[in-house]
Amino acid sequence: MTTLSTTAAANPATGTEALLAAVRTGTRVYDLGRRLTIGMPQSPNHPPFWHALPRRHGDAVRADGGSAANDIITMGTHVGTHIDAFSHVSHDGRLLDGTDATTAGRGGRFTDLGAHTIAPMLRRGVLLDVPTALGTPDGCAPGYEITAEDLSTTADQQATPVQPGDVVLIRSGWGRLFGHEDRTRYVGHTTGVPGVGEAGATWLADQGIHAAGADTIAFERLRPGAGHSALPAHRVLLVDRGVYIIETMALEELAADGVHEFLFVLSPLAIFGATGSPVRPLAVVVDE
Amino acid sequence: MTTLSTTAAANPATGTEALLAAVRTGTRVYDLGRRLTIGMPQSPNHPPFWHALPRRHGDAVRADGGSAANDIITMGTHVGTHIDAFSHVSHDGRLLDGTDATTAGRGGRFTDLGAHTIAPMLRRGVLLDVPTALGTPDGCAPGYEITAEDLSTTADQQATPVQPGDVVLIRSGWGRLFGHEDRTRYVGHTTGVPGVGEAGATWLADQGIHAAGADTIAFERLRPGAGHSALPAHRVLLVDRGVYIIETMALEELAADGVHEFLFVLSPLAIFGATGSPVRPLAVVVDE
Amino acid sequence: MTTLSTTAAANPATGTEALLAAVRTGTRVYDLGRRLTIGMPQSPNHPPFWHALPRRHGDAVRADGGSAANDIITMGTHVGTHIDAFSHVSHDGRLLDGTDATTAGRGGRFTDLGAHTIAPMLRRGVLLDVPTALGTPDGCAPGYEITAEDLSTTADQQATPVQPGDVVLIRSGWGRLFGHEDRTRYVGHTTGVPGVGEAGATWLADQGIHAAGADTIAFERLRPGAGHSALPAHRVLLVDRGVYIIETMALEELAADGVHEFLFVLSPLAIFGATGSPVRPLAVVVDE
Amino acid sequence: MTTLSTTAAANPATGTEALLAAVRTGTRVYDLGRRLTIGMPQSPNHPPFWHALPRRHGDAVRADGGSAANDIITMGTHVGTHIDAFSHVSHDGRLLDGTDATTAGRGGRFTDLGAHTIAPMLRRGVLLDVPTALGTPDGCAPGYEITAEDLSTTADQQATPVQPGDVVLIRSGWGRLFGHEDRTRYVGHTTGVPGVGEAGATWLADQGIHAAGADTIAFERLRPGAGHSALPAHRVLLVDRGVYIIETMALEELAADGVHEFLFVLSPLAIFGATGSPVRPLAVVVDE
Repeated sequence: MTTLSTTAAANPATGTEALLAAVRTGTRVYDLGRRLTIGMPQSPNHPPFWHALPRRHGDAVRADGGSAANDIITMGTHVGTHIDAFSHVSHDGRLLDGTDATTAGRGGRFTDLGAHTIAPMLRRGVLLDVPTALGTPDGCAPGYEITAEDLSTTADQQATPVQPGDVVLIRSGWGRLFGHEDRTRYVGHTTGVPGVGEAGATWLADQGIHAAGADTIAFERLRPGAGHSALPAHRVLLVDRGVYIIETMALEELAADGVHEFLFVLSPLAIFGATGSPVRPLAVVVDE
Repeated sequence: MTTLSTTAAANPATGTEALLAAVRTGTRVYDLGRRLTIGMPQSPNHPPFWHALPRRHGDAVRADGGSAANDIITMGTHVGTHIDAFSHVSHDGRLLDGTDATTAGRGGRFTDLGAHTIAPMLRRGVLLDVPTALGTPDGCAPGYEITAEDLSTTADQQATPVQPGDVVLIRSGWGRLFGHEDRTRYVGHTTGVPGVGEAGATWLADQGIHAAGADTIAFERLRPGAGHSALPAHRVLLVDRGVYIIETMALEELAADGVHEFLFVLSPLAIFGATGSPVRPLAVVVDE
Repeated sequence: MTTLSTTAAANPATGTEALLAAVRTGTRVYDLGRRLTIGMPQSPNHPPFWHALPRRHGDAVRADGGSAANDIITMGTHVGTHIDAFSHVSHDGRLLDGTDATTAGRGGRFTDLGAHTIAPMLRRGVLLDVPTALGTPDGCAPGYEITAEDLSTTADQQATPVQPGDVVLIRSGWGRLFGHEDRTRYVGHTTGVPGVGEAGATWLADQGIHAAGADTIAFERLRPGAGHSALPAHRVLLVDRGVYIIETMALEELAADGVHEFLFVLSPLAIFGATGSPVRPLAVVVDE
Repeated sequence: MTTLSTTAAANPATGTEALLAAVRTGTRVYDLGRRLTIGMPQSPNHPPFWHALPRRHGDAVRADGGSAANDIITMGTHVGTHIDAFSHVSHDGRLLDGTDATTAGRGGRFTDLGAHTIAPMLRRGVLLDVPTALGTPDGCAPGYEITAEDLSTTADQQATPVQPGDVVLIRSGWGRLFGHEDRTRYVGHTTGVPGVGEAGATWLADQGIHAAGADTIAFERLRPGAGHSALPAHRVLLVDRGVYIIETMALEELAADGVHEFLFVLSPLAIFGATGSPVRPLAVVVDE
């Protein structure tokens, strides 16, 4: 900041003013969240998203001519674009903080590692556009395991080194199937789904990143026919290393524009004790 | 980081780099959202927030020792901290865009003015700490109507003029009752609730602001015993002038720290066709 | 009843006593409802059944050693075994009672024809085991339209004439697919589903029956690939003639035991203003 | 009908025919269930009932002029008129069958003692109209503990001895408050609620009854201000003795008509693994 203020014009903006100036001028905001719609693809392990209007306009009009419509929604927290809290996954009965996972969930809420403990994120974000770096820009093959080398190669080619504290978003290209009329395609049980495996997750954690996201439903690579029977990358990130996971992201637009570095913004709902939260993450860039 | 700062010294950061530099140095993020908990105060007009864990750790452990817990939530979109979409309120049968409100809601979703059409916000935010400016820092009296003059006086005293495109958050002090053990206190049906009325809303709209928020359940002033029988500020902002409303905000910490100007961040869930969305808005400041 | 009491043994039971005597001696109760389980087959048009335990035993133990577990459920009313209220279907904008269907549903509930207006049923029930009568006891072919003649032939062969006020349950044999591991089989979008068409429904209504049930998800015949695009039997029964429809019934056991006449018992939840209710209907027979 | 009565004269109806004859002639059916409406009184411990119409008539009209409306409901299973499964309550960590209560609920469902294991009931029902027998027909005082002697006195006065296998419904008169505009009155936290205590519950169990019901929200007596902090009758009936409990029943009409003995009909939803089910129980009498 000091640098910036020193060099900035006649009347240099500092602090919050500089921040406001930055967002005021030529900011582009990429929406990395999927629309929540009835029937969107999701894992059958979770309560689906559903929505209705209990009241519509005209149902009850007040004396002054006013009327209000409202909603009811019911859903899991791991449907649509969402972030996993550290309470979501345990290994050998333990959570990230070493506590007994069953005890931690007593009462139907995770007091210490629930979704309400996920701090809002304003961090450097890096898109690793793996398929483009690998020469198959349309996307990785179904069930392809993105390797640690793929990740580092991509970062190098893009000249966007991954830094501690970053949020790293891994494009596999699979997001193109989100809107497919056959909703099972995106879930990919039969075909498998591309993504990192244990090695890729370890590499990500080794960079000291804060969170990792992907354009698939389970973040990590799923073998054809295997479903969610083994999720080693979840273990590495959520249980062993303390890296948040964001799933079902919309990354195609970012990739199409070649935006590989940005301000990543995510503000999860503070659902007390939950294992995750639906989110609408943003990538913000400023045109110079 | 090293690279960036080195570069910055010689060649001032611009564009996205400047933005990243700004958030990297001394950023303070204020959480303006309330925790979503079962039993929190809310209007009886809306489906209450409820949460449960369908699966807990230990329910089903995979061969490799992994286990996942998950959630079900059910709620209205006007409970907890939330934003009203323009589809929420109509007047004389019309929505903001002049369309017939009943027709617009056909199919159980508002295609044109639903929550999914609320663009994420990264904007200048201004807190108008009205009770402090009026010399009653603990809060306005129940049922007090915050006037246009109160608003402009507060902006003047704080030296934070309201500008077009801003998000203006109006503190009444009522937020102190959110955690009261008698949950009816915050709802305030008997006592009334302080807030702007028609005149205050008109003043806000006249400044050209983008959104207005408050620390109360209905944003605007409620007369004792009157409940939601008349909501003129909603009409002015949502139907007549196109200004979003954010309700049930947590503004006490911001006020206590004297933070009156900030980067306001809000990214509503893109709930297709809904009349609002739960949100967790943020106020971001950079210490110099 | 007079007849019965006159002829009954030495100390003839009369009135309620006779009824109690009847149920006390050798009563067999057939459960015609499907279990409500997460993931059971259903139409995608309706919110699926979901269930969780917000509180489990051990979550909060009272001083005296007591503990209570409880539930949350979310579902449509047309999933699992259920009955359609007359508010469910309209034709050319009119409901059974001739009222405007849109007006009737204003406020989000049907005051006059909602599920709460379905009187509990204790009536003569007749099972028409169509495939057995047609010589294909395992079931009708997918997409087969059960004709009026099929119905009357079956009633004749079984010597169970259909009488005014009866509840008639039509077995197609399709219920055998309810538990199929491929949950799309029972829904039958691709294959079509057997059932009555317009002519069969008209025949049923002409007999003056009170309600009709079937072992399929939509009661009536669905053409392969057509889904719910046309439901003429629903129109005939619900809109034109005032005959309730019960769907997704379990009829295999009744058929296997050759029980074609019984006391039919159904007590829908009085969900105010709803278009249907989940039910667990019963067939009661007394062994002599 | 003609056939049947003709036959009966010569050859008295037996078995199912007699049952059908009984229900055909002069049957009166009392609805013992409360309507499910948004905002009805209930314990705050349970997810409230909520209902909306995702689709209304006119939302999507098919080519042939047909249109269907449908519902979404969300609720606990211990709201409105409902039955407790034996999985609902444990004592010192044990359920009725002696199993460990926590283990039994693993997986989020009670396989052995869940609501799906409650057999439908067609049994002799007895209404014990306690306040009428005690000379205060409008109802017992708030917080009054109905004693074992009260129960036996009532049965004697009514000449309706309680028999093994019966379902016994205990009227306290408190049901008159169900529709009170102040919804906290029926819940009765401040005032207490009348009902049996441990001794009354033991007397009921000693008679060998199958189920017990009441016109209050918690079946048993609640002390003023004590809420659900101690529920000894629940322990006696659900954990120690295996007697089902039915709550929030509508018993006023039965009492007003002086109907003390009837066929009791109850068919709970077979919600797999749940701790209870909403029900609409019936009392059936035959006029001679």
